Amino acid sequence: MIILGIDPGLAIVGFGIIEKSRRGIRVIDYGVITTDKSMRLPERLSAIYDSLKALISKYNPDCVAMEEIFFNTNITTGIAVSEARGVLLLCAKQMGCALYEYTPLQIKQALTGYGRADKHQVQFMVKTILQLSSIPKPDDAADALAVACTHAQTNTLLSGTDIK
Amino acid sequence: MIILGIDPGLAIVGFGIIEKSRRGIRVIDYGVITTDKSMRLPERLSAIYDSLKALISKYNPDCVAMEEIFFNTNITTGIAVSEARGVLLLCAKQMGCALYEYTPLQIKQALTGYGRADKHQVQFMVKTILQLSSIPKPDDAADALAVACTHAQTNTLLSGTDIK
Repeated sequence: MIILGIDPGLAIVGFGIIEKSRRGIRVIDYGVITTDKSMRLPERLSAIYDSLKALISKYNPDCVAMEEIFFNTNITTGIAVSEARGVLLLCAKQMGCALYEYTPLQIKQALTGYGRADKHQVQFMVKTILQLSSIPKPDDAADALAVACTHAQTNTLLSGTDIK
Repeated sequence: MIILGIDPGLAIVGFGIIEKSRRGIRVIDYGVITTDKSMRLPERLSAIYDSLKALISKYNPDCVAMEEIFFNTNITTGIAVSEARGVLLLCAKQMGCALYEYTPLQIKQALTGYGRADKHQVQFMVKTILQLSSIPKPDDAADALAVACTHAQTNTLLSGTDIK
């Protein structure tokens, strides 16, 4: 099973592609889609859509796992992230992928067994689970791999939280 | 010039299509795109995308005017509206429409000359400008016609606020 994890954003979208098989979990690819602040919003959304479509076409994932958005701090950023997230969900759906979403709490619990784990602990577990020599960079890519690993870990027991 | 006004939302997207010519402004069509709460989020976004695409194909607008989002009250609703708005912007961009956005303040000022006008005053002016026999229903359609009229009114003097 190929899983595409996504950390949504407007300026930076993290992605992580892993394969889960009987032999375990291995990383296939990870990185970020970036859009420049000098571009206008519709162009940035369009660029994100095209980049995700190309990734899905290339790796043909069975499912897409995305981090759920919470924002208490910066509402303006939250609006932009949500607009990008809508486009990412639309693209994955149009490309025929099954969609799952996980809260930050679910990700921390699935990977570290502890809901209050910090960012570093989660990233350390991503490195361990995927047998990488170092923590993936940038953070957005590591976060995307974390949500992909969460889906791989929980999917054996649960069916994931379907996006309503 | 054909202008498509959009009032973004997840459950209800208002739309209003008007024509501006030397003879004045006239309404072509208005209504709402609705998605059911029982549908999952990606399906709702996909339905909104398909419906807007069909509307743009049918009426071939020169430009799309959209209300800018502000939310101080309900952040959960705000996330959903923003996700839908991202999809609406993407669709309009992919269909080749020029995009403009207006704040609620700009809409009130353009239509009533008064930035603190209430909803009823704005709707009354929409009815007057478009020479309708009654205020368009539902509110979402009236709001969409209001942003379309705002673009028609301000576009002669200003170039509109391009969506960054």
